[in-house]
Amino acid sequence: MNSLDHRAGREFFTARTVSDALAGFRPARRTAVEPVALADLLRRVPAAEVPAPGALPGFPRSTVDGYAVRSADTYGASEGLPSYLDLAGSVRMGTAPEVAVPPGGCVYIPTGAVLPAGADAVVMVEFTAQTMPGTIEVTRPVAPGAGLVRADEDVAEGAVLVPAGRPLRAPDLGLLAAAGVTEVPVHARPRVAIVSTGDEVVPPSTPALTAGQVRDATASALAGLVRDAGGEPVLAGIVPDDREALEKTLRVALADADMVVVSAGSSVGARDETAGAVAALGEIWCHGLAIKPGKPTLLADCGGVPLIGLPGNPLSALVVFRLVGAPLVWRLAGCGAPPPEPSTRARLSRDLASAAGRLDVVQVTVRDGVAEPLFGPSALLSVLTRADGFLIVPEAATGLDGGSEVTVTLYR
Amino acid sequence: MNSLDHRAGREFFTARTVSDALAGFRPARRTAVEPVALADLLRRVPAAEVPAPGALPGFPRSTVDGYAVRSADTYGASEGLPSYLDLAGSVRMGTAPEVAVPPGGCVYIPTGAVLPAGADAVVMVEFTAQTMPGTIEVTRPVAPGAGLVRADEDVAEGAVLVPAGRPLRAPDLGLLAAAGVTEVPVHARPRVAIVSTGDEVVPPSTPALTAGQVRDATASALAGLVRDAGGEPVLAGIVPDDREALEKTLRVALADADMVVVSAGSSVGARDETAGAVAALGEIWCHGLAIKPGKPTLLADCGGVPLIGLPGNPLSALVVFRLVGAPLVWRLAGCGAPPPEPSTRARLSRDLASAAGRLDVVQVTVRDGVAEPLFGPSALLSVLTRADGFLIVPEAATGLDGGSEVTVTLYR
Repeated sequence: MNSLDHRAGREFFTARTVSDALAGFRPARRTAVEPVALADLLRRVPAAEVPAPGALPGFPRSTVDGYAVRSADTYGASEGLPSYLDLAGSVRMGTAPEVAVPPGGCVYIPTGAVLPAGADAVVMVEFTAQTMPGTIEVTRPVAPGAGLVRADEDVAEGAVLVPAGRPLRAPDLGLLAAAGVTEVPVHARPRVAIVSTGDEVVPPSTPALTAGQVRDATASALAGLVRDAGGEPVLAGIVPDDREALEKTLRVALADADMVVVSAGSSVGARDETAGAVAALGEIWCHGLAIKPGKPTLLADCGGVPLIGLPGNPLSALVVFRLVGAPLVWRLAGCGAPPPEPSTRARLSRDLASAAGRLDVVQVTVRDGVAEPLFGPSALLSVLTRADGFLIVPEAATGLDGGSEVTVTLYR
Repeated sequence: MNSLDHRAGREFFTARTVSDALAGFRPARRTAVEPVALADLLRRVPAAEVPAPGALPGFPRSTVDGYAVRSADTYGASEGLPSYLDLAGSVRMGTAPEVAVPPGGCVYIPTGAVLPAGADAVVMVEFTAQTMPGTIEVTRPVAPGAGLVRADEDVAEGAVLVPAGRPLRAPDLGLLAAAGVTEVPVHARPRVAIVSTGDEVVPPSTPALTAGQVRDATASALAGLVRDAGGEPVLAGIVPDDREALEKTLRVALADADMVVVSAGSSVGARDETAGAVAALGEIWCHGLAIKPGKPTLLADCGGVPLIGLPGNPLSALVVFRLVGAPLVWRLAGCGAPPPEPSTRARLSRDLASAAGRLDVVQVTVRDGVAEPLFGPSALLSVLTRADGFLIVPEAATGLDGGSEVTVTLYR
């Protein structure tokens, strides 16, 4: 931690590195647990691991079309010298077998049906022939357990169907369905209040602007990032650059939401108002991150509820929220390790300079394996929409050489 | 294309490779276009590019806190020999400037405010001092255009705000908001009917099973994959292994949905019923894919509506749907290139054998950079839920060596 006295004398930063923020800023809040039905469980985070109520598949099950046999009866069988087995009947799908497999006998069984009593293996139909009525020739030996899965081979009773804390994926829903678990207690989606500030900011629906007005871009984009992180955005409106009004709005938001994001005014004066309002509501953990863009970021713990004060430029705000805010949203829902993001390796088209001790986030396009940095003031949101992804110049590095191989996190 | 006469004589495959299927199976259907409000546009696919109704930011805008100046007036300024400029006033956020910058003068301007007339640059406050009331010392020269963005520097009027055919990302929503575009015509979410078949299959909600019954795992998991691909799953129920019943259900599904997925019965007999029913409803493009698991996959074009007959094993069905079905869902919504998926490079823990000409999909865990294959019959869904991702042994390869570097597509 270090205190930077801003040259203009109006800002006192308690600056931190991004890795400090990711590791050390840990407000206690977690969302409540609610039961959710199977059809709505995708990407939801189980509050506890879900045990299997019973074994799966629940019965010894054929994995091939063929004949249930006693494997010992096929010992030494070959094309030249087949085993001859008496056909004792057949098993129908979805029902209990009506016949058992006697010594020297076999029972026809389709894929997925219940292994009849007496049998310990299934011979694939490809390795059999029926040359006489009632007799099956087996031309290959089978080992015990061949052609079937055991009653508990997919999941044993009491084993973990899905773990706690990992967002549920499509196959998890299948396993839950197979086990008859049609409702799971999961963490509620974190409600993330998004507060916009700035005397110049007006709602996106404003048809015509007067000179100096801008429509609120950041709130809509942040709402998208919140959804991507499994949260529920709550647009809490636009507040003028007035400390009392801001403090009042933040107080309401903190009472209602699991997390509060302030897209701060862009001027130093407006940022000071934000910091002042926040200081009255919680403990400021850092004011300033060693990141470019995004330095004037504020993180505060307001009675367990995380509050992020984002830079005024939309580009900077979104870069910081993606890196620092989204993991917080996941954690509020009980997920400590957010899902992986797409990435690719690419060759950097040119040298990139960076200050040591600062993490640089560089927007790039990627074409034919070449990552081309997109430059431009961080006031330009279109830099972000034109990018295919971003690369990071780590805190320890003073830059990256053109031609070097880099990892680009891709937008999806 | 090649015809394989199944050894048992009951299946006639028109087999294809997966790359053939991805490139060549192209039913014509696209979903209708519907207007959707800004707040609901995340991941939706614009039907046409959206042009900017006006320039952004719409006025020359300061990107720093400082003084609007005529850059020529700062020529040669230094700490030792500052330029002295007359302070003519200040600009307030969100309003038109009330003063212009006269020759030899300057106007205070916060970040984000409108550049006043006469000025062509903004000097950062850090490089100024106010030693006498009404006079600002400038200690560094600025070039024309410094400290500001032009009125159309973010987006020019008529330029493309968001392209057609790419799912909208969070920053796109910001740019649309900034431009005042609060509704965009996008493709409707493809409705994907999911038909389960099998005499043994019962709904997940079935409390107690009789011998041989299994709960429908595949439909719930497929529903998740459909949602991941931007589609709307429609569970069309469970049909017994009866050709007429299946044909009737498929006919209804084809009339209602943009795509139909049949999770086929697992036995060869049940698969034949599916193929027979589908043949009556459309053109079978392939019956059999050169993929493991997933060989008995059927693709058909039913009057433009894609129909996929999936293998009976849930694991195989999900592997095939992820590779071949999900891109079709995206294409139905007008998106030709699905979003990238997360992946990682890892070292393969052991040799993997594979038949040339066949694409093998191998489920793996990844720990400390090592990809460990998960083996087990494809009847086991838990192999998929335990995996961190999968790797592909390409069609041309006959296997992969242990220790070689592989790309693992990660589940998220």
